Order: sequence, then C-alpha cells, then structure tokens
Amino acid sequence: MMKRSDVLIYDTTLRDGTQGEKINFSAEEKLRIAQRLDDMGFHYIEGGWPGSNPKDSRFFELAKHTRFKHARLSAFGSTRKPHIRSENCPNLAAIIQAETPVVTIFGKTWDLHVRDILDISLTENLAMIGDSVAYLKLHGKEVIYDAEHFFDGYKNNAAYARKTIEAALSAGADWVVLCDTNGGSLPSEVTTIIAEMAALIPLHRMGIHAHNDGDLGVANSIVAVQAGVRMVQGTINGFGERCGNADLIPIIANLQLKMKKRCLAEETIRHLTSLSNYVSEVANVPPQNSQPFVGRSAFAHKGGVHVSAVIKNPTAYEHIRPEQVGNKQRVLVSDLAGKSNIEYKARELGVELGLDKVTTKKIVKEIKKMEDQGYQFDAAEGSLSLLIKKITGEFKDPFNLESYHVMITKRGNEPPLAQASIKISVGDEQEVTSAEGNGPINALDNALRKALTKFYPQLNEMHLVDFKVRIVEGSEGTAAMVKVLLDSKDEEEVWSTIGVSDNVIEASWHALVDSVQYKLSRDKININNRTARCRRKDS
Amino acid sequence: MMKRSDVLIYDTTLRDGTQGEKINFSAEEKLRIAQRLDDMGFHYIEGGWPGSNPKDSRFFELAKHTRFKHARLSAFGSTRKPHIRSENCPNLAAIIQAETPVVTIFGKTWDLHVRDILDISLTENLAMIGDSVAYLKLHGKEVIYDAEHFFDGYKNNAAYARKTIEAALSAGADWVVLCDTNGGSLPSEVTTIIAEMAALIPLHRMGIHAHNDGDLGVANSIVAVQAGVRMVQGTINGFGERCGNADLIPIIANLQLKMKKRCLAEETIRHLTSLSNYVSEVANVPPQNSQPFVGRSAFAHKGGVHVSAVIKNPTAYEHIRPEQVGNKQRVLVSDLAGKSNIEYKARELGVELGLDKVTTKKIVKEIKKMEDQGYQFDAAEGSLSLLIKKITGEFKDPFNLESYHVMITKRGNEPPLAQASIKISVGDEQEVTSAEGNGPINALDNALRKALTKFYPQLNEMHLVDFKVRIVEGSEGTAAMVKVLLDSKDEEEVWSTIGVSDNVIEASWHALVDSVQYKLSRDKININNRTARCRRKDS
Repeated sequence: MMKRSDVLIYDTTLRDGTQGEKINFSAEEKLRIAQRLDDMGFHYIEGGWPGSNPKDSRFFELAKHTRFKHARLSAFGSTRKPHIRSENCPNLAAIIQAETPVVTIFGKTWDLHVRDILDISLTENLAMIGDSVAYLKLHGKEVIYDAEHFFDGYKNNAAYARKTIEAALSAGADWVVLCDTNGGSLPSEVTTIIAEMAALIPLHRMGIHAHNDGDLGVANSIVAVQAGVRMVQGTINGFGERCGNADLIPIIANLQLKMKKRCLAEETIRHLTSLSNYVSEVANVPPQNSQPFVGRSAFAHKGGVHVSAVIKNPTAYEHIRPEQVGNKQRVLVSDLAGKSNIEYKARELGVELGLDKVTTKKIVKEIKKMEDQGYQFDAAEGSLSLLIKKITGEFKDPFNLESYHVMITKRGNEPPLAQASIKISVGDEQEVTSAEGNGPINALDNALRKALTKFYPQLNEMHLVDFKVRIVEGSEGTAAMVKVLLDSKDEEEVWSTIGVSDNVIEASWHALVDSVQYKLSRDKININNRTARCRRKDS
Repeated sequence: MMKRSDVLIYDTTLRDGTQGEKINFSAEEKLRIAQRLDDMGFHYIEGGWPGSNPKDSRFFELAKHTRFKHARLSAFGSTRKPHIRSENCPNLAAIIQAETPVVTIFGKTWDLHVRDILDISLTENLAMIGDSVAYLKLHGKEVIYDAEHFFDGYKNNAAYARKTIEAALSAGADWVVLCDTNGGSLPSEVTTIIAEMAALIPLHRMGIHAHNDGDLGVANSIVAVQAGVRMVQGTINGFGERCGNADLIPIIANLQLKMKKRCLAEETIRHLTSLSNYVSEVANVPPQNSQPFVGRSAFAHKGGVHVSAVIKNPTAYEHIRPEQVGNKQRVLVSDLAGKSNIEYKARELGVELGLDKVTTKKIVKEIKKMEDQGYQFDAAEGSLSLLIKKITGEFKDPFNLESYHVMITKRGNEPPLAQASIKISVGDEQEVTSAEGNGPINALDNALRKALTKFYPQLNEMHLVDFKVRIVEGSEGTAAMVKVLLDSKDEEEVWSTIGVSDNVIEASWHALVDSVQYKLSRDKININNRTARCRRKDS
C-alpha cells in the first residue's frame, strides 16, 4: 500500500507537451506513455483535448479499454462557448464523451483576454466559468479548474481575477490551478500571490501550472509547494510550447530528495532517468545531455581537479547520488583530461592497463589526435574500448578491407537505387560480395555483413538500432566534416561507435567496422573470462 | 556615458563554460568571444585558468595586446598549494603572469573537501586562503575570492565556512562570491544563507556563482540579487560542467526587464539573441530552440487558440516583447494548425493567397501529407515558401532532372573518391555534367551548380553555409528515413531547405534543389516587385 502523498503530480505531457515545437504523438504512443506514467505512480494524467482534434478523441476511445492502477485520467477543454447553454456546447459534450473520471477546464482570468481575445463582457466570462463547472459536476466528474493567465491577470486586475476564481469555487470546482500561462512570473511573485489567494482557495485544493519562459518554471513550481499548494502540473522533460512547461523530472526529484515532500514512491523515483529517456525516444527528440538529474552529463566529470576528487569521494562534486534517480557517474575523456581519466575509463570498460605508463601515454596521444579530427568518444564508448584494446594488443583487426564501391543511380522521378560491392580478406582468404539497400549506407552495411558472417556467424546476433549523422564543422556547407554515430545491439548490451570523415559514406564505414569489431572483441573477452574462471577453479 | 549598474555581470564562459561536455574554444575563439562580451558592456570576463593548460596561457598572451572598452579581464586560479610560501607557488605565479587587472581565486569552504580531497588540516586551509589573497593584493590586483562549495559547506559546518570567508576578507579580498558548486541548493536556502552572511560580508562586495544541477541555476542567481548581492557569475547559454552554470542570458533579461535592475545598457540587451547564437556557433553546439528569451521557439506559437490570439494581441501569450531581446515572433506550421496559420505564414513569406480558400486548403493538405513522410517545415521556411509558390502557380520548376549517378570508391587505406554525374533539361536544352567532391553530396552539389550556372548565372552569388542530417525514425538502423537540412546564403539573406528520403543522397538532392529554386524564386519576386513599383509610378 502506497503512503499518502504530500504533493499530487498532474502530468500534461500528452496535451500541453504536444504544443511544443516538433512534439507529436500518435494515439497509441500516448497510451503507452500514459501506462508508463501510471506504473510510476503519477496521480493525474491529462490525455488530451478531445474537442480539438481527432487524434485526441481516438486516444480517449483507446483509454476506455485500459485499466490504470494509480492514475486518474483527465480530459481537457475550455469553458462553454459564449452566449449558449452548457448542454448545447460541443466543447463540453466532447469532454463528457471522453468518459474520464476527471475533467480539467480552463477559463479566462485576465480581463485583457476576455475583452481583446474572446470579445465578450466580463460578466459573460464569469457565467461561462460557473455554468461549465456546475454542468460537469452534475455529470459526476472531479473538476479541476485551470485559471489561465492567473498571475498576469491578478497583477493587472486582482479584483476581477478573484471573481473568476469565486465563480469556479462556488460552482463546485474540486481544484483551482493557478496558471502562469505566459511563463514570465518571478518566484517572489508566485510566493506573494499564493499567500494572498490562500484566504480564498483552500491550499489543499490549490495547484500550480508553470511555464518556463523566464527559465524559472521549476523554481516557480517549487516555491508554490513551499507556499502550500498541493498539486503540481507539468510535463516530462519540460516539453511544451515556446520554452516549455515546468519540467516534472527535476520538480519530482527536488520535492522528494531535497524537500522531503512525498510525491511518488521511493522505488519509482529510481526510474526517473529511464522515464525521461523513454518519453524523449517516443517523441523522437534527442535527449538533452545537460538535463538536471537525468541527463547523460548530469553526473559527468571532465576537469582534472573534479575527476580526482570524485574518485576519492563522489559527494565532493555530486549534489545527490546519481543512483537515486537511476542515473550514473561518468568520467569524460577529453582534451582537458589526463592519464588518470584514461585509467579510470579503462577500468570501467573492463580493460586492464596494468602499471605500464607507456601504454597509457600512447592511448592519451592517440585520443588527442583523433579528437583533433572531430572524433568524440564520450558518445562512442564502443569505439573507445576498441581503440584501447588495439593499443594494448588485446585485440587485433579481424579482417582487412581491400576495396569498396558504392553507387547511387536515379532516373527522373523514380526512387534512386543504391548498390555496394566490397572486397575483404580474413587471413589468407578473400571474399567479394555485393548488396543493395535503401540508401548507400544500408547497402554498405548489408554487403559487409554478407562478407563477414561466413567467418563470424555470431554477427547475426547483432543489429543496428540507431544511426546519427552530425556535422563537425558547420561552416563549410556540403564539404563539411561528417561524424556518424551508430548504436548497435545484441542480446547482452547496446554499444555506440563513431566514424569521422569529410565523406558521409566513409564516416559510416568507419562506424560500421567499429561496431562489428566491438561485437567480436567483446565476445573474445567473454571467452577469455571464461577461460580465466576455469583456470581459477583448477588452481 | 553609461549609467551606474545595479548588478555587475561576471562572465565565466571562457573558463567554467569550457568544463561542459563538448565545449572547446581555441585561444583565438576565446578572444573573439571576450571582445563581443566587452562590446555588450559586461563588467568582468574570466579568460581562463593560466596555470592549468597552455591554451589558457596563450589566451592571456593574446589579450595583453587587446584593449577592452568596459570589461575588466580576470585570470582564474586556486589558492597557493599546501605547505609552501605564496611566492614559491607556481599557481599564483601563473595568475600574476597573466597581467590582468583582476584575479579570481577559489578556496575550500567545506571541511569535507579540506579533509577528504586536499588531505590537509583545517588550519592550513585558512592560511592558504589568507596568504594567497594577501599576496595577490600586494601585486596590486582587484581580488575576487570564489568560496567553492559555500552553500554545502555552510550547511554542514557553518562555523568553519565563516572562518574561511573571514580569512579572505581580512587579507583584503575585494569581493566574496558564494558558490553553489554542486548546484543542488534551493532558492529558499540561498535566500536564508545570504541573509545570515550579510553581517559578515558587505552586500555590495558579495557575489553569487550558481550551477544548474537542480534546474534552479537562474532562480538561485535571481533570488540572490533580491537578497542584495551585487555580482552575478555565470556563462552564456549556461555552458558548463554537468548540467551547466547559471545561464547569464535569462538572468540578464529577468534582472533588467522584469526586476528593473540595471546591468547592461538597454541598447545592448537587444543583442542578447545574437550573442547567444554567436557563442553557440563558435562552440559549434546546436542552439537550444526552447532557450528562454533567445531560443528560436521562445516566441513560437503552434496551438490554434494561441495563434489567433497573438495575431489579435501579442501580449496575450508573450511575457515580453521579443524585440526587447532581439528575438522575433514565429507562427509554426504543424499538424495541429489550420488554415489561419497558413494564411499568416504566407503573409510573413510575402506570398498573397487572396480570398481563394481552395488554394489554402490544397496547401494545408499537401503540407500534412509531407509531414507524414517526415518533412518538418518549421526549420525549413525556404522549402515552405517554395511549396506555397508552386501551388499558387507563382513559381514553376526552372529545370528538370533527367538522371544522376553518384559513385564512391575506396581502395585499402586510401581516402575514398566521390564523383557525381548529372543530366538536366531547361526548356528544350539538355546539359550533362560531372564533378568530384569531398563526399558524395558535395560532388552532387558541384555537378548541379556546374549544370545550372550556364542558365542562371546568379547562382554564383549563393553558397551553402550549413548542412545537417537527422534521422526521422531512429529505430531502423541504417535503413532509417533521413532528413537533410541545408542553410544557404547570398548577400541578402540566409534560407533553410529540407529533403527527406530513406537514402541520404536523395534527401540531400531534394534539399539542394529546393535551395537553388528558392534563390531563383526570390529573385523572380524581386523582379516582379520592381515591375510593380514601376507601374505604380507610371499611373
């Protein structure tokens, strides 16, 4: 049984989050995310705005056949349209048809919006709020009233802003959520205004909905909780319009780990990193490395002073233990880094450098040379591990390239054809193969595997899961240096490799070759380990 | 004459910023950034740590021959090493050799660091702080003392933390900067602790140095100013180790526009957007679209409700006027958007749709179809403009592709060769050309220009400035859909075009063709406008 929560988390990734540039989810993707949030113990999940588009209506159809363990699902919408009765309003009808236990409706707090945007009287706006809340309560819903532009409205006309809240409360709204819709409020304003509103709205029924336009979305949510509000609305990874909504990931981590306010169960906090990555992946948005708590760099150490300190005592440069949120410490290999970093990294990758300082120096020198060409090993630890193993002599090239030839042909409006032929040698044996592909890199990949599986059948176990192309120097147009990053996978792990060249095909080739070699080198190590274990048993 | 500043801005992009993953500057790049910051009226610029690496020493050599108009340059370093005299310490010698008017040294506040990391006595640490400050004052420097881990140290052992500050002050430090080195403090803690320290450190000599590990770097800097500190340290775009330093861009904008605290001159605030972009470009890091105030999406509107509102009154959904920081409003074209967005966009792009609703519908339908394939027009307005002009009949294809053929050949370890041949027709005339390139796309680009300049010599005025490749769906390895974004430039403007295909060459081809056609379509419009103007004169 879960303990009572101090703060209730209301997720609007599926609705307000999709207002963000480049954020789109299918109805099925929305359902998968909702289930994940439910597994994590989120209290409320806003699924969409059923009146606004067919995709959101479809989501609620799918959700009717889904059981949520913790979360209460909410449908979002606006108050009734002006000058009609609630029962005739298509907006409210669509919300009710969604058949959710909770509904969230937003109304106008700011007189400027009532007059200039809606173009109605201040009185009609109050009626729209009261009528809509009362109508939804009649239908047995838990009603959350989102007071749009609350802080701006209050700053400009506090008396009218209060009246809109009174209209919602006296009609029976269960919650009043104060929205900083334009995201421009300061934490000090949020604190003061919530204190002033506490006489009108019971704090245990008050919520905060912040945006990040002043880079203060998380701070405004946190000071609101300190001022007493009990519901926080936000999105995973801060997805949302303009600069995004308040990011629930650092909000939850700060509340729970720093402020000792219980919101999710402790065991689910440990999945914040994977939740963040999962939502980025579904949204097909590259995760932000510097994202607080869960980013790949959030506990990454580069400076020499910091690295030697965190090796002695992680508290020295880490504000929490990364494992608390499912993240991990990393030591970066870069041109600022020295021998101690390489030794740490080699240990992490399972390569024993021993006391041979000459080898370590050789590795540092080679890495620096490659970094000058545009290689970056922090995102390609497969290539780094391979490089170290080759320099220590632990691994040797399993094949040689004699030549490759890639052709792309296009006629008129037909789709282009891509073909690759390749000649490799393994020991004394030569192999010539040829393959087609969707594009030139896919063709090359196919030809390479065709040539190699004869010698190394275990390559059938691996496949590529991601492929990224980046420009090293953006200033030279199509002649720029290109960096290709590949993620490959087998049953045991995912590994990343890198290739750099001014030719995208050649860069891909290097990354492909590293990917295959990494697989072969790891399997070789496993065999060595097995041998080592057997030996130990014998002795 | 500049008015007196309420808050002094201390930039450490060139030192602490370079601790960020993937952030590297050459000495020359550092100098260019320093000059730009000086032009903007920044008060202090920390150039680097001359003792730590040769690149930083070189920067200070270059800086000796540079005159700064406003900014005071600072060299950074640690206090003297344990158990030696200041005059024998190579760290302090390196700082003095930098010949800057200001020096910033950091010392340990947190007893945990003194004991576990430095492995010295608490007394020796106090002596190191006092001796180093006194020695640098003897050399006539303005001395800024950075109290590393101040907040963590104070929370764990306030008495000792105070002693370290007393050591710095009584030795003559001009400034004491309280550092939240691990970035984990809450705004409420920062406010309380600064109030407690105000009896010891005069507020007009107190500074704040925050990190962003709790997503609170900007908030912590702002509440520190509200608590009375007069110096804020941070970096442009929040570059820095782990989750970054406090981002000076939103700090300056919030201080000046929201809190009416003067830091930079009003006319330079208008260059915050270009400053942010400039530093990202030099660092070769893609700018973050959602960055508050200056990001490309910071004033971008997508939802139908918001778009129609901002057209009526921008204040409705914008917390400041974007022009105040040199940014601009944008309306996004996306699958959430309807006809009114397209009409707005067409006006922005200078295309007149008139009252013909059928054409608008046709455009919306075509955009939706292409978005389904992976096209995204929010980052490719050149392609969007072209699409609209083609559907309205305002622009016709200036040439047809008959065929292209691209070959990449590699032998052994030699660099690969890339060649492209192309056949196009313009009216009745055909042209066959062939070209080499660094890579296949460069070869194709070269061949296309060679074929076209005969017909359209104005294409010599344009060139490509950036080339990006992204994966549309990351889940299919090397067979994934590829999106290519090109930025092209002539004397008048920069434009972006897009191509999507499962073949990187074909995607690049589409983006290249759009780029060339955009140039031709715009020049045609200019001619039309000229004709229109002439006619008006005549009438």
